[in-house]
Amino acid sequence: MTELIYEQPLNEKIRSYLRLEYLSAQLQQNLTEDLQHRCFYPLFSLCELTDRCDYRSDVLKDIDRNIILLSKWLEQPEVHKDQVHHIINRLIQAKAPLQTPDRIGVHLKKEKFICALRQRFGMPGACCNFDLPQLHFWLAKSWQERQLDIQCWIDQFEPLLTPVSLLLELIRNTAEFNQADANAGFYQSDSSQALALIRVKIDAKYGCYPTISGHRNRYAIHFVDFDQQRHTDKTIQFLLATCS
Amino acid sequence: MTELIYEQPLNEKIRSYLRLEYLSAQLQQNLTEDLQHRCFYPLFSLCELTDRCDYRSDVLKDIDRNIILLSKWLEQPEVHKDQVHHIINRLIQAKAPLQTPDRIGVHLKKEKFICALRQRFGMPGACCNFDLPQLHFWLAKSWQERQLDIQCWIDQFEPLLTPVSLLLELIRNTAEFNQADANAGFYQSDSSQALALIRVKIDAKYGCYPTISGHRNRYAIHFVDFDQQRHTDKTIQFLLATCS
Repeated sequence: MTELIYEQPLNEKIRSYLRLEYLSAQLQQNLTEDLQHRCFYPLFSLCELTDRCDYRSDVLKDIDRNIILLSKWLEQPEVHKDQVHHIINRLIQAKAPLQTPDRIGVHLKKEKFICALRQRFGMPGACCNFDLPQLHFWLAKSWQERQLDIQCWIDQFEPLLTPVSLLLELIRNTAEFNQADANAGFYQSDSSQALALIRVKIDAKYGCYPTISGHRNRYAIHFVDFDQQRHTDKTIQFLLATCS
Repeated sequence: MTELIYEQPLNEKIRSYLRLEYLSAQLQQNLTEDLQHRCFYPLFSLCELTDRCDYRSDVLKDIDRNIILLSKWLEQPEVHKDQVHHIINRLIQAKAPLQTPDRIGVHLKKEKFICALRQRFGMPGACCNFDLPQLHFWLAKSWQERQLDIQCWIDQFEPLLTPVSLLLELIRNTAEFNQADANAGFYQSDSSQALALIRVKIDAKYGCYPTISGHRNRYAIHFVDFDQQRHTDKTIQFLLATCS
């Protein structure tokens, strides 16, 4: 049995957070596996996203909001105080690295080697030997040397990526999975509370994936048959979590 | 000792061939290694290049030209006739798959799954779970199943990629490597014959990579120090092959 989790953000901020988290996961993989020139794809995507938008104020606001929320929790008698304190500390620690005058990743974007590669990587098949001889040289270095370079590059984005992962962890923990049925492959519902994230867990045996749409209080889930690439008529049993 | 080969095409056709060969090598790697969603990068680059340009007439002309050339060789007494016959046969076999009414890769580009992914892959960080749930589903399939899919997709480009590799092999075989010195990191030369490809073999211990420029009969090679990212003053001993 392969259970897959699909997630759908219901607002722009969570959408950005999920993108950053996805790129962060890929960057971490670049450190454990030698993926050759492919390690640059998530790095340059991250450069692009942080060029377009400075996420820091959003993240800082969310950190503060969560610290206040968790501090209130501490007043409840049934709460695991140690756990909550631990999370509050992680949140507090994440603040300082974000409060710098320089934008995230700015130093990386100034590196000559990175600049040359970045210009080329968007073009199809344009990281050939003759397009980027410096890449060819770099790829021939030992994996240990390249790992150190990659670690340096990733480090520049850590101040942003670490709190984003933590905030998403907190959001995911706001709801548990509950059994749900999609009759004729369709499910919809609403919530009195504003929602941030819909999560669907489904067994791959159905051969279906969900397409989820929604906004704040309402959402709908269509299940699509992968092989036929169209809406399924089957009744699908799945697990649903609506996080806020 | 790590010897690296750098190549520079001296005309547009060879430039295209090298790009296609580079993508072909990456596609082959996708079959032997499970590179997850990364397998789509070279595939979509190939889609893009074959959209922009139909390489078939160039390749067919080159095949015919080489068959004539090799047939003339057969008249020479000192030639290894078996080897030449073998190459001529490979060239003849490569012709039929290119002579189809449909453009290369046209069926792949019509596949719904491929179309949906291709639209997204150009955008930074846009192959998240929520952007492409179908990709998330596909990636959870067994590696054997995905390998079969990848093989099918690659097969569509084989009629083009097989002869391109063969033609480049023939071009590379037109010249052998000879010792050369770049005083103060610079080398230039010319040739009475029109050149197609410059090849530079250099030991990585120099910490330099070449940037090669040129056109038809003239070319220049600058060696760049990788760490300093600027022209080196050192004398560089390297191996040079000028293919026509």
